Formats: sequence, structure tokens, C-alpha cells
Amino acid sequence: MQSASMETKANSNMSSPKATDFGTALCIITGASKGLGRSLARKIAGLLKPGSVLLLVARSGDKLQQLQADLVSSEAGTAGLQIRCVVADLSHKEGVESVVRQAKETSCSGIDRLLLFNNAASLGDVSRYARSFTNMDDVDSYLSFNVSSALCLTAGILGAFPHRIGIRRCIVNISSLCAVKPFSSWVLYCSGKAARDMIFRVLAEEEPDLRVLNYAPGPLDTDMLLQARTFTADATVKESISAMHSEGHVLTCEESAGKLLKVLLEDNYPSGAHLDVYDV
Amino acid sequence: MQSASMETKANSNMSSPKATDFGTALCIITGASKGLGRSLARKIAGLLKPGSVLLLVARSGDKLQQLQADLVSSEAGTAGLQIRCVVADLSHKEGVESVVRQAKETSCSGIDRLLLFNNAASLGDVSRYARSFTNMDDVDSYLSFNVSSALCLTAGILGAFPHRIGIRRCIVNISSLCAVKPFSSWVLYCSGKAARDMIFRVLAEEEPDLRVLNYAPGPLDTDMLLQARTFTADATVKESISAMHSEGHVLTCEESAGKLLKVLLEDNYPSGAHLDVYDV
Repeated sequence: MQSASMETKANSNMSSPKATDFGTALCIITGASKGLGRSLARKIAGLLKPGSVLLLVARSGDKLQQLQADLVSSEAGTAGLQIRCVVADLSHKEGVESVVRQAKETSCSGIDRLLLFNNAASLGDVSRYARSFTNMDDVDSYLSFNVSSALCLTAGILGAFPHRIGIRRCIVNISSLCAVKPFSSWVLYCSGKAARDMIFRVLAEEEPDLRVLNYAPGPLDTDMLLQARTFTADATVKESISAMHSEGHVLTCEESAGKLLKVLLEDNYPSGAHLDVYDV
Repeated sequence: MQSASMETKANSNMSSPKATDFGTALCIITGASKGLGRSLARKIAGLLKPGSVLLLVARSGDKLQQLQADLVSSEAGTAGLQIRCVVADLSHKEGVESVVRQAKETSCSGIDRLLLFNNAASLGDVSRYARSFTNMDDVDSYLSFNVSSALCLTAGILGAFPHRIGIRRCIVNISSLCAVKPFSSWVLYCSGKAARDMIFRVLAEEEPDLRVLNYAPGPLDTDMLLQARTFTADATVKESISAMHSEGHVLTCEESAGKLLKVLLEDNYPSGAHLDVYDV
């Protein structure tokens, strides 16, 4: 009986252009302890049916557990949303494997939706120019965390939840304008984001039953933006970030997370697309 | 007197739209033992003035030394072009460092041009889809060889030969259509090439005195294409490569190398551009 009700739900979601929730889902968010990841967790919690599982991943256990506690006591939590935390460092394969393992262990036989938000990322050292990156270890470790882990986590999760009638799978890559436009003194960030976008474009080609989105969330009022404003070597780029900030052109994480979830609910984007918050 | 003649040469190259050679150059080519790298070495040898140094980099010592022997006994070699070999594996930092060290040790006080061709690359495992890349080590080592090494080698060479009046520096990234278009079952190659293009777009932003080109050489009759024809998992992509091959739409390395060198001599491309052989 439970599975029949799931089936109905999935069908009604598919046929309706006005979905108002994500059904009964397993939703995984990396980098969930702060910034956009945390806002996504908070917002999506209210859009998941009871019985859904929200798997929050971050390096920082304290912040993650605080978020978990908030969500458990929220309306969604009391209504039956399960919130699980995985403290993992995605710059190492053990971290990625641990997320996949804990996703597998989640009891989610009744889900009709899988949602993975590849949100975790780092800015890299923006205090210097490309010509100074002579040390391969620095570049390797940046790419490992920002590129390899996104591919391998996605692959692991897709392997754990393979194509099955009645389960809709959606993979989101948190991208950036930097994936498509070069910025002086941001060589790691730009090339890492470009690589990630391409990974998910290839994935969309390969898996027609998946829904894949590269979402550029805009300049957000986060620790990363503070880091960018403080350390960017290129004076012009640095000033333009400061100007955006002082002139109020920086978006809140809540606002951008809301726009992303709206796009996902409407479900009209071409799979593999790069969508900017300003185009929403 | 030698340096005065260099100065004149550099000036005449700069003012003339019809340069027919690259002056007295230090020219570094990675992946030089076969395919496009070898064709570039052979072709550019005839376009370098006596006193130039051609630094050929590859993993395979035998093939590299054969090429060196051929070039030493060629017209350019007998006229005074020096050909040096560096046997190095660019998937490890020791390999990258060894190329930079040997470039530094090259006696090239009289050069008026620096040319670096980042050509070395691998296809990656195309026999499987993105969803199978669960092992971070595989992805890390692919990115290290194909992305990190190109950035770190370029940075090392630019550090060894900093901006100086009278020396024109040009950095070429051998790119691909795959840098801008996703192909099913080629996730490593596509994302690696996308990352590389972005690295060199950022570099072009940062260093206005540099000339930077991302050159997509087209489908070439190389070992890599054979590998692609043989192992590509996606039937449609595999068939289209085979069809290109059987219908004669594959270019020779000589042809594509010739077009690249023509573009570099004409020197009209916007720095940082992605240029496809079919646009030349």
C-alpha cells in the first residue's frame, strides 16, 4: 500500500507543471554546514514529504549538528523528516566513500526521488596569479576536492541508487559564473568550476533518465565572498567584488537557494544546462 | 652586435603582418615523441633561426632520440638549430620540475621568442561512463597529468623567462572540441580539456604581454584516435569516430600542425581564444 501511494505521488509530480514539493526523497547536500548548503538544507526541509531523508555532509561536525538539531525541531522534523549528518572531508576518497556508504545504509525503500546537491567547494588561493602555481601538489589537491570528489560522489550515489521505475533522480552541481568566464587571479576556482560543469554536461548526455543542472548561484554573502574580497590579487576584480558588496548587489543564500529550488520544482530546464541565478 | 640584430628581428616581426619565421626562439614541446607533438617539432624546426633551441619533452626516450637524430641531421639542424631532449613523465611533479630546470639551463641569452606548446595529454578511460568513476585515485591521476602539469609547467617556464623587453612569449594549449562540447563516455577527456582551456583563458587575462592560444587541432590520425575508435563505450560516439576515419575526415598531424603554426605566425588571434582547426 505504501508503494502504491508512492507511485501515485511520482506520477502526479510528473504530470503536473505545478509541483509544490519534492515528494518522498533522499536528499544529499554537501558543504551543508554553512552558506548556500545550509540555506538549501533549511529550505528543502519544508519541501520534502514525511519519510524523506535529508543527508547533510560537511567537514565541521559542530555546525552540522547544530543545523541537524534546528531541523529536527522544525515543522518538517516533527512531521517525520529524518535528518542525518555525515562528517566527512571530500578532499579524500575515504570521505567520499563514507558519504556513499551512509547514503546506502539509509532506509529509504519508500522514496520516489533522489536529489544530490554537489555544493562543497573551495575558492583556492586567489592571492596570487596563475604564473605562481608551480607546485603540482597545490593544484592536485585543489582539483581533488573540487573536481574529482564531485564526480566520484555522484558516481557512487548513482551506483547505490541505479535507474528504477518510480524513482526520479536529480543531480545538481553548484557552479559559478567562473565556470564560463575567466577572472584574473582565480585560476583554480575558474578551471575547477569549468571542469565540474563539463562533468555534469557529459553526465547529462550519458544518462537521459537523469535530471542534471549546473546552477550558478550568483555572488553570495558567504565566507567565500569575504575571502575573495580580502585576498584577491587582481585589484580590478577585488574592487568589483567590494563594490558589489557595498552597493548591495550580493544575494543572500536564502534568496539563491529559493530560486534553485523553484527551478527544480518547475523542472523545465534542459538536462545538463548551465543556469545562472540571474536567468531565473 | 648579436643582440642588436635580435632587436631588429623582433621589431620587424612585430611590425610585419607577414612573418615567415619565429626568429631566434626557445621552443618547448611536450608530448613530442609522436602524433601532433612530433609533427609540430618537425615543422617548427624549419621556422626557427639558427641559434634557436628546440626542447622536446616526452616519456619515451627512444622515440624522442630518434626524432632528435632526424632533426639534427635536417637542414635546420645543420644550420645551427639546437635540439635537446628531456625524458620526463609530466604526471609527476619531478617530471615538470625537470623540464623547467632544463629549460633554465639552456643557453639562450640571444633569444627573442619563447614558445611553449602544452601538447602532452591522455584520453583517459573512455570504455566506461561517468557513473562508473567512483575511484578518486583514477580521476586524481588523470587530472594531475592533464590539468595540473599544464598549469605548473607553464608557471615554471614563465618564472624562468619573465617578462622582458625584446622577448615575445607565447603559450599554446593543445585543446579539443571536447573542451567546449560534451561527449558521452569521455568524461575525463572533456572535463580535463575544459579545465585546461579555462586555465589559459585566465592566464591571458592576467598577463597582457603574453600571447595565449587554445588550439583545437581537429580529429587527428594518431594513437589517441585509434584508442578512441577502439574503446569508446558510447556506440554513437564510437561509430561517428569510425565514420570520420573511414570517410577520410581525419586530418593528418602535419596538416593540423601547419595550420597552428600559420596562426601563430600571423599572430592575429585574441589572446586566450579557443581556436578550432576548422576555423583556420
